[in-house]
Amino acid sequence: MKPWDIIERKELVNASPFLKLYRETVRLENGEQINDYYTIDQQDYIAVFAMISPQEILGIRHYKHGAKKINLGLPSGYIEGCESPLSAAKRELLEETGYIANDWRPLGTFVVDGNRGCGNVHVFFARDLVKKQEPASGDLETMSLERINLVQLPELLETGVVATLGAAIGISLGLLKIKSSLEEG
Amino acid sequence: MKPWDIIERKELVNASPFLKLYRETVRLENGEQINDYYTIDQQDYIAVFAMISPQEILGIRHYKHGAKKINLGLPSGYIEGCESPLSAAKRELLEETGYIANDWRPLGTFVVDGNRGCGNVHVFFARDLVKKQEPASGDLETMSLERINLVQLPELLETGVVATLGAAIGISLGLLKIKSSLEEG
Repeated sequence: MKPWDIIERKELVNASPFLKLYRETVRLENGEQINDYYTIDQQDYIAVFAMISPQEILGIRHYKHGAKKINLGLPSGYIEGCESPLSAAKRELLEETGYIANDWRPLGTFVVDGNRGCGNVHVFFARDLVKKQEPASGDLETMSLERINLVQLPELLETGVVATLGAAIGISLGLLKIKSSLEEG
Repeated sequence: MKPWDIIERKELVNASPFLKLYRETVRLENGEQINDYYTIDQQDYIAVFAMISPQEILGIRHYKHGAKKINLGLPSGYIEGCESPLSAAKRELLEETGYIANDWRPLGTFVVDGNRGCGNVHVFFARDLVKKQEPASGDLETMSLERINLVQLPELLETGVVATLGAAIGISLGLLKIKSSLEEG
């Protein structure tokens, strides 16, 4: 089992800084050549499972144009310039919620699309929150900040109230982290 | 809080059936107009958390070109034609693993990219598996089928062995489902 060879990579669209679309000619592990394998470069982003109390996280309600609906999301956003994922997570949490957190843990990094690429999402768990300022995200979306009780989260995931995959992985991994901490005592 | 208006939608690339790239002119909730908002249409896909025993799921090890690495994934694949998500999940499980399952539960549906779109992932939980045939996926990737113990999964998520977001959400939601069943008795 080994990586495919990229024989040619043609840039079809350069819409920097948002995305670049490529058509690749690739050679598979079995030697077969594919002449139209599409890949997409996008900015990495972060999502933060931020515990505002032992029973609640900070949720963000906003219209998401990719989902074409009002979504219950997490503090999240694109990594800018040379920021580390953790620095971006701290910046986005402060901008979108007005809080800083004194305890940060990484929960995982995943490529958004296993076939096309589309950048990575970096998921963080944040605790020990302190209010520093009023929220001022600067994002395109109008958003409202909410406290969401942990016991509500499984149903919000299952019923599509949490509509985006970035929010869903942040909430799922955050809940698993809490449950494993409880099991360990 | 309300959806944005799409004033114009220009198709930049039509790479059917894989993807279509659009540049949209949108009007935001505050009235501001954005002339270069990019959206992507892709096929929906499914991922299956399939319990082969009370302690193990079926994992698939394969090179994923989006991640540029060998990935530990789940049975998964694109929905074809007019298939329902559940029908696609049953077909992919059989093709990739040789098993059918007698107990299926939906775990959630999420848009892959909250900004760009990129299709939806539909996640399923499958139990009561019966071997029917040898695996024969027909996919581009060379793959190996493995039994993975549930207790290994959190570390495999955290360390990047599970490298793709589709596999990560399937495993996370599957583990949460098991834990909530155990809590309910």
